[in-house]
Amino acid sequence: MYVYGKNTLKEIINSGYPLKHIFFSNSKAERGKLSELIDFVESLGYSFSFTSNEALEKMVFTNKHQGVVIDIGEEFNYSNVEILDSKKELFVVILDQIHDPHNFGAIVRSSVAAGVDAIIIPKDNAVDVTPIVVKASAGQIFKIPIIKVTNISRTIEILKKKNVWVYGADSLGKPYYQIDYSGSVCIVFGNEGEGIRKNVKNHCDELISIPMLNNVESLNVSVSAGIILFEIKKNKNIV
Amino acid sequence: MYVYGKNTLKEIINSGYPLKHIFFSNSKAERGKLSELIDFVESLGYSFSFTSNEALEKMVFTNKHQGVVIDIGEEFNYSNVEILDSKKELFVVILDQIHDPHNFGAIVRSSVAAGVDAIIIPKDNAVDVTPIVVKASAGQIFKIPIIKVTNISRTIEILKKKNVWVYGADSLGKPYYQIDYSGSVCIVFGNEGEGIRKNVKNHCDELISIPMLNNVESLNVSVSAGIILFEIKKNKNIV
Repeated sequence: MYVYGKNTLKEIINSGYPLKHIFFSNSKAERGKLSELIDFVESLGYSFSFTSNEALEKMVFTNKHQGVVIDIGEEFNYSNVEILDSKKELFVVILDQIHDPHNFGAIVRSSVAAGVDAIIIPKDNAVDVTPIVVKASAGQIFKIPIIKVTNISRTIEILKKKNVWVYGADSLGKPYYQIDYSGSVCIVFGNEGEGIRKNVKNHCDELISIPMLNNVESLNVSVSAGIILFEIKKNKNIV
Repeated sequence: MYVYGKNTLKEIINSGYPLKHIFFSNSKAERGKLSELIDFVESLGYSFSFTSNEALEKMVFTNKHQGVVIDIGEEFNYSNVEILDSKKELFVVILDQIHDPHNFGAIVRSSVAAGVDAIIIPKDNAVDVTPIVVKASAGQIFKIPIIKVTNISRTIEILKKKNVWVYGADSLGKPYYQIDYSGSVCIVFGNEGEGIRKNVKNHCDELISIPMLNNVESLNVSVSAGIILFEIKKNKNIV
């Protein structure tokens, strides 16, 4: 998969995520702006080469590559639920069938900033990690495990056995700011149109909502996630 | 301007925003789903007609019109700063050069849900109200005045004279949850890449920030706005 952008490259390097090759623009205009980054990449011994802006554009289907395209291998490096075993107190996010890559990316970005330990997504009927998701995450996706599972309900039951309290974000829930989030918590956010699937909702310990005015029925899911995750960060006093 | 979608039409009608004409799909598949809405529109005496899905798609450059396209006239109905005179305690949002229509729309949606009285945008170097903004706002944009001004700094000074305390969202500010938001408040959010312009920032009374972990530099601006606006809603206890 080809991902792009200067910040994305920096985050990949900082996180130690394995990358295969870096393509830099060979245009004079770009190379001046990139010289520091190229020196840095060279000093670390990464494999890189130069190619035209047009070739870069063809690789990532956008001209917003900033002269940097990164080959991170066939598929994104997903994690397994077992990696959660090593941590004592968990703060986990489950995304139940999110479809919009911009929403997924923005939630990843917010999750890293709020101190979330991992994000769990389903194998089917959801957006995977794509170049747009990586870009929308501002490269933050390389700092957090993305766990792909076959069955969200079963995963919730596994989390419950680890003493994780599982909240579902739903308009009929208790106001999100009337909750004590101490201990291990997981928040489930549902699909853009439909919310959390009924069957998944039934597995949650408790539902939480964001009270709204003026008969607004819902917020953009990445906004809802930001509001709730940062309330939890504040509540847990994670610094 | 042509806007689209069933919810958008409902919100336009509920808000009493002046609409010129409604185009419904004449496809059999769509008309069944639309019959209730068509009856409702007819009972209220709105001007409407039927046309092909292809024609609707050409009007709005997307096939996500749900069989409903609404002509709301040449330009969106912007408001003037004077409309703020009628309210005693103000809760206002200023968007300093937001470029992404999805961000603008999502902020409008959050603002209506958080009880914001009006949103102020600059005439230049910012996204206007476009069909994508309307869609991203989930039709909520018809419920809130959008005020377009020539000079944001001058507008901030006008607000200050009305005893509005003006906060700028900036990474160097005081944590957003350590603020007493009682009285009239205005929050300024900056551009996606650059934040608030320096000169606009200088006019703010105080800067506020969202403390973040893992060296994340910023959040998506619509997420930041959601977090801060809903903290204010909670703080002011607006219900």
